Amino acid sequence: MKPETIEKLIGKQKIAYIASVDENGYPNMKAMLAPRKRNGLREFWFSTNTSSLRVAQYRENPKASIYFCERKFYSYRGVMLVGTMEVLEDAASKEMIWEKGDKMFYPEGVSDPDYCVLKFTAASARWYSNLKHGSFELI
Amino acid sequence: MKPETIEKLIGKQKIAYIASVDENGYPNMKAMLAPRKRNGLREFWFSTNTSSLRVAQYRENPKASIYFCERKFYSYRGVMLVGTMEVLEDAASKEMIWEKGDKMFYPEGVSDPDYCVLKFTAASARWYSNLKHGSFELI
Repeated sequence: MKPETIEKLIGKQKIAYIASVDENGYPNMKAMLAPRKRNGLREFWFSTNTSSLRVAQYRENPKASIYFCERKFYSYRGVMLVGTMEVLEDAASKEMIWEKGDKMFYPEGVSDPDYCVLKFTAASARWYSNLKHGSFELI
Repeated sequence: MKPETIEKLIGKQKIAYIASVDENGYPNMKAMLAPRKRNGLREFWFSTNTSSLRVAQYRENPKASIYFCERKFYSYRGVMLVGTMEVLEDAASKEMIWEKGDKMFYPEGVSDPDYCVLKFTAASARWYSNLKHGSFELI
């Protein structure tokens, strides 16, 4: 898949999977809502709970990957981006991706201390598309 | 969620996500076909390509996690199992989970050297269900 095809694939997904490494060196992962903002295939911003386990893990070890995939009948396409995750709690970052409906989860609004931003920066990509695969660098 | 509820959730999924740690310490992940065989929440057997990147990573570092999830309208449930992954190439393991249709991918049949078994053994579980979450040990 070309980078443009991968960008389109990512743009259509409502769910992203994010992976971290826990304190014992085990890979952890979970599903997240799709990133709120994206800069090509290089930067992705997610909203999350400051108190979450994943945030604690990324503060200790920023090594990360994110994954997007699409299944349509017998067709399967997926892309993994490997890079680093930053936990951002500054007002500008929080405001940048805040959406009105978030108040349901963060009663204090955009300055709620339990609301923060995960910023992922990709270094490389690896894709799979119907038995074919490939990879490329992003830095 | 109770272990029985999680088992049911897993039993319904056609896709599993598996995570590994690469040679630079970064978490990697990808989607897989659901496990061919399962022993409760403790053991899972997957079929895969011996030549795959994931197999090479698990041979170096068996630390692993597997993830299953279900989205239904506004309901979201997911479970992550953390443990270890073994690469099995013995005839008995390969025969145990072989299915006829696999010949499409492994032309030499059950003894095809590019066909092998990934056996995951879980040590702990962490689940998410509609804003609630919990975890438990499996050993």
